[in-house]
Amino acid sequence: MDKIKNILKAKAEVIEENLIKLLDCQDELAPQLTKSMKYTLLSGGKRIRPILTLLIAELLEGNYQAALKAGSALEMIHSYSLIHDDLPAMDDDKLRRGKKTNHLVFGEATAILAGDGLLTYAFQVLADLELKPDLKVKIIANTAKFSGYQGMVGGQVLDLEAENKDLTLQEMQKVHQAKTGALIKASVLNGVYCSDFKPEEKKALLTYAEKIGVLFQIVDDLLDLTGETEAMGKVVGRDQELNKATYPKLLGLKKAQKEAEKYAKEAKEALIIFGKKAEKLEALIDFILKRQQ
Amino acid sequence: MDKIKNILKAKAEVIEENLIKLLDCQDELAPQLTKSMKYTLLSGGKRIRPILTLLIAELLEGNYQAALKAGSALEMIHSYSLIHDDLPAMDDDKLRRGKKTNHLVFGEATAILAGDGLLTYAFQVLADLELKPDLKVKIIANTAKFSGYQGMVGGQVLDLEAENKDLTLQEMQKVHQAKTGALIKASVLNGVYCSDFKPEEKKALLTYAEKIGVLFQIVDDLLDLTGETEAMGKVVGRDQELNKATYPKLLGLKKAQKEAEKYAKEAKEALIIFGKKAEKLEALIDFILKRQQ
Repeated sequence: MDKIKNILKAKAEVIEENLIKLLDCQDELAPQLTKSMKYTLLSGGKRIRPILTLLIAELLEGNYQAALKAGSALEMIHSYSLIHDDLPAMDDDKLRRGKKTNHLVFGEATAILAGDGLLTYAFQVLADLELKPDLKVKIIANTAKFSGYQGMVGGQVLDLEAENKDLTLQEMQKVHQAKTGALIKASVLNGVYCSDFKPEEKKALLTYAEKIGVLFQIVDDLLDLTGETEAMGKVVGRDQELNKATYPKLLGLKKAQKEAEKYAKEAKEALIIFGKKAEKLEALIDFILKRQQ
Repeated sequence: MDKIKNILKAKAEVIEENLIKLLDCQDELAPQLTKSMKYTLLSGGKRIRPILTLLIAELLEGNYQAALKAGSALEMIHSYSLIHDDLPAMDDDKLRRGKKTNHLVFGEATAILAGDGLLTYAFQVLADLELKPDLKVKIIANTAKFSGYQGMVGGQVLDLEAENKDLTLQEMQKVHQAKTGALIKASVLNGVYCSDFKPEEKKALLTYAEKIGVLFQIVDDLLDLTGETEAMGKVVGRDQELNKATYPKLLGLKKAQKEAEKYAKEAKEALIIFGKKAEKLEALIDFILKRQQ
């Protein structure tokens, strides 16, 4: 566990550096806007999405530099979604990664526009990848599809509509699949497209993406119930407050934990065809399962 | 004037049809979201941006279908910016194109997400153009740059910061250039990239774009002062209410009108190298100059 933690830490640092670089070499038309974009983008975070893109490009011996950039673009999309999610009109959150949420620091208007700016810039970064144009187009199409109205944004609407409703397990999973799962899938696929791959490898990695997507969500639900605000860096207990459907609410705490272990096991099984080469992706599963924040 | 009006009307109809098609053939994950996206996207509007893209592809005998789609993507970006601009945290507008603004119908949360959805989908549409991959990438990079933090989004922040401040003419023009001018430039460039073009043609069309961008803004400022809410389809007098810098405020009504005519003349001069072939683009200048809404 310590070994994977160190690997992930090193990767997160490389990604952090790259994000700083990507947002620094550009002309600043509106300094307050870029400040607000950087505030959330560079406020730490686990960087799970770009780490996935990187680990998969490593596994398939793909283009590492392209994967680093493609992953960074996904982190921008993830960051913009957090900024917009936290707005008073949405989840109205005050704390994110141990810091005041974006709109509390920069005001609502700038926060909305910082989100728009990060989302738009993500596509500019993807258009600038050091890859053949047809691969870039594939990655852009993939990213837009999974993060847009058929993916993450659609899931966010479903999530808001689900407040105070009694969802079935299946309905809740549909929400999660779109809200969290889609971007994780995009992260994995972008890593695949930065590499040469066999169809069965892509298929296996998509299964892996699906399983860890659900796993990530179950653990998220559990941590919101059992975690500490300080360790989490965000206010816990919000799911209950907003009366959201969660795994522990629908299954009970114990069964939800079992379910997490089940998905972790299935994610590992998906990696079997890669043998020892996939050990980092495998270790990432345990990291997600056992994370405390 | 009647002839160009009919041409523009016909083009707007073709664009409308294409927008309907683009948003209809997709799976609906969250029906309320797509309803909200369509509400603003399909609520009329002058369609100046996609019309520009189309007219330029026609002038340069480029790929008409690609230009139609590329223009539609720009209209999606324009629409998303209107939805976010109208939010209570931004300009807090109640009326747009004669209808209640998006957030008044769908609520703020859905309106924010409808904007996000339209912006993201624009890039999905661009990735799907029937053009060679390298041209698609060029169009995507161009669109992202001009609509993002170095362009439209940056301009929006500058615009908000300018409220209740005394801007000089130069400062105000910098705001306009980013907020309105950048997307008009992108519309023209996307038309160019859908075609084979000579460098001097691109240069002339960029000058044209710059001039009509300013012209559009001056007329907008004048109409906000002298137009009627009913004819305009939006509440007029908002600039004064928000104490925004405008051409008539800085130059006086008469001089602002003169300035509009000057830019119209310069826009026409930029088209000289195309001769008679550019008559529609030329007529568009007069249309913008004399528009009443």
